[in-house]
Amino acid sequence: MAKSTQLIDNEVFRAYATYAAIILVKMMLMSLITAYFRITRKAFANPEDTASFGKGDSAKKFLRTDADVERVRRGHLNDLENIVPFFGIGLLYALCGPDLSTALLHFRIFAGARILHTFAYLIPLPQPSRGLSWAIGYAVTISMAYRVLSKALYL
Amino acid sequence: MAKSTQLIDNEVFRAYATYAAIILVKMMLMSLITAYFRITRKAFANPEDTASFGKGDSAKKFLRTDADVERVRRGHLNDLENIVPFFGIGLLYALCGPDLSTALLHFRIFAGARILHTFAYLIPLPQPSRGLSWAIGYAVTISMAYRVLSKALYL
Amino acid sequence: MAKSTQLIDNEVFRAYATYAAIILVKMMLMSLITAYFRITRKAFANPEDTASFGKGDSAKKFLRTDADVERVRRGHLNDLENIVPFFGIGLLYALCGPDLSTALLHFRIFAGARILHTFAYLIPLPQPSRGLSWAIGYAVTISMAYRVLSKALYL
Repeated sequence: MAKSTQLIDNEVFRAYATYAAIILVKMMLMSLITAYFRITRKAFANPEDTASFGKGDSAKKFLRTDADVERVRRGHLNDLENIVPFFGIGLLYALCGPDLSTALLHFRIFAGARILHTFAYLIPLPQPSRGLSWAIGYAVTISMAYRVLSKALYL
Repeated sequence: MAKSTQLIDNEVFRAYATYAAIILVKMMLMSLITAYFRITRKAFANPEDTASFGKGDSAKKFLRTDADVERVRRGHLNDLENIVPFFGIGLLYALCGPDLSTALLHFRIFAGARILHTFAYLIPLPQPSRGLSWAIGYAVTISMAYRVLSKALYL
Repeated sequence: MAKSTQLIDNEVFRAYATYAAIILVKMMLMSLITAYFRITRKAFANPEDTASFGKGDSAKKFLRTDADVERVRRGHLNDLENIVPFFGIGLLYALCGPDLSTALLHFRIFAGARILHTFAYLIPLPQPSRGLSWAIGYAVTISMAYRVLSKALYL
């Protein structure tokens, strides 16, 4: 069965696979950062997570929200809201046969913008750092969606 | 490398690409609507977002939740919960070689139902408008999942 | 157009399609469980959802959060955060031409771990059941990402 390896031999598809994997792994890192802040800030959402801190009221006080934990969680949700459309539209875009250089431009800018967005959210950098990096990633995805719709349109 | 352009020549795949791109862009619009309500309602989640309203307590009062903002955010999350399965299962379904007319029926009903769902959520329309449009999209996705599992099953 | 049916004839891709469909349907079930708890616990997020319980204050008291509803919602969000990367990275991985047995091992462990995770979250089981099942699914996805990046890397 050579079929599946042939797609991965396509340079545009390889570039897509590379950047999609990188940015999905970056999104997954948000889980680890959330866990890190939950443990260091002792701020949990589930009673069973605080059982190791003792019983009763001594454990209950760790069932709370923490500003840093909530910040990471907002960043994670923003990733989901933006990386999911990039993954989906980017896949269709890569299959539409764009120029390699154009495709690389889209993928690189998106990945760079989202990595910047994460730093801007977590440090946090003053606005409009976060807003701008969000908008750049958004615009890249819309640009790819335009290409997909103009190439594949079949209503 | 003609491989990647061949897939996009397949009519079922083109139909999938069209509706998937449309519905992902629709989901992305929720971000803009959230931003619109956050700005007009002056209700932000991050201290750095309120810096332009002044310093100290004058800015802090804009760190609040707003019913309209929360409504859009619930709609956005509901999109993620439903459009992600549609995108994933729909992709596998499109690759299973369904009839073009059957596939179009699935994609059109799903896209229509989710657009209705957004209007039902944001206006808001009285129930069961929102519940019904949600259920229709859900049923379409389950129908495609059934086709994928009966065609591709390999445990 | 035989192209799209050829991909689904590939055994690795069929295995991917099977487990991806199963785990996406599992994620969709979280919506039904949320709806079940919202109705039985009478805990809703939207005023229009409580209209059938009467008007005014008699309905307003059902606009509340409930511990069981919030638990299911956290489980659903955790699914989104973990199943989306699995779906995306797993797709790229399946197209990289791994051994069938290695691929099946990855898909089966991930699906099993996420089903366990759901039970651990909803029952709930004492920790580290939930943490461990989460970590196993996470490790499987990272392992596939490593394979994708070492096979397809094109920066």
